[in-house]
Amino acid sequence: MNSKDFGIWEGEVTTELPAQPDAGVYYIGRIHTPWTERKQCPKNARESDAICTIEIEERWVPALKDVASCTHLVLLYWMDRSPRNIVLQVPSHYGVQRGTFALRSPARPNPIAMSVVKLHGVDGNKLTVSGLDCLDGTPLIDIKPYFASTDSVPDTRVGWHEDRRPAE
Amino acid sequence: MNSKDFGIWEGEVTTELPAQPDAGVYYIGRIHTPWTERKQCPKNARESDAICTIEIEERWVPALKDVASCTHLVLLYWMDRSPRNIVLQVPSHYGVQRGTFALRSPARPNPIAMSVVKLHGVDGNKLTVSGLDCLDGTPLIDIKPYFASTDSVPDTRVGWHEDRRPAE
Repeated sequence: MNSKDFGIWEGEVTTELPAQPDAGVYYIGRIHTPWTERKQCPKNARESDAICTIEIEERWVPALKDVASCTHLVLLYWMDRSPRNIVLQVPSHYGVQRGTFALRSPARPNPIAMSVVKLHGVDGNKLTVSGLDCLDGTPLIDIKPYFASTDSVPDTRVGWHEDRRPAE
Repeated sequence: MNSKDFGIWEGEVTTELPAQPDAGVYYIGRIHTPWTERKQCPKNARESDAICTIEIEERWVPALKDVASCTHLVLLYWMDRSPRNIVLQVPSHYGVQRGTFALRSPARPNPIAMSVVKLHGVDGNKLTVSGLDCLDGTPLIDIKPYFASTDSVPDTRVGWHEDRRPAE
């Protein structure tokens, strides 16, 4: 199944992509992680305390000012190997068809992943963080300060995810 | 000052943008809010309980399956009127130069805003949500389920933001 790591699976439904993109993204750096194959990546970023290094392109380094004062960051990165045309997908560990927008799968119209990471340090054009789950070399597209006042909502529910638990 | 709403301010520092984008983004829908000028937008999305409507493009509607079971969503949207070349900026309400990646300003290399919103309902290709702060007509680029287990980190700090308070 390894060759299908980034392909379309049985039971998945695709749509036709638009003819042209509407806007362009710049890669602002690269994420260096210990994982070079998808099957090595942690299933959940919080399961991993691996230290990862982010290298920022020279032109954007001045924009890192004050970042070191943050304990946590929101990182947006581009899952550049993912198909973008899947609307219904079957996560392998659940085996049920779900809508793409109800999943955190990298396969989505715009393959942007979002992770909340702990910042360990900033040194020149390099950041060290933990809390990532992506492949080595993944392109970074944004860094934001994590504000608990707006970004932390503890009492939320993802209904379909709860329903998958065995009935009691 | 209105004509400068989306421009470069005194004390701000820019960089040269790359010649070409590295990847393309598709707009998947539009966000409808009560705000048609930037000065009307809430400074902080949590300050507002205004109900906003999101209209999803037909081709992506099947991907909304199971979204209604989520109480909260992460929305990514494209701040299409923002300059992308600012590395140091001076937020008007603080008056101090900060790095772009230490701010949630829409002016950033990839003008992607991230908000955690409360989902009120899903009806066909329309979602009603609260917790947004953007202009009417803003392009939507992604919808994700909000998982408190990974996305909610209550004990975080943004040091520069605390330091701006008057000394005691």
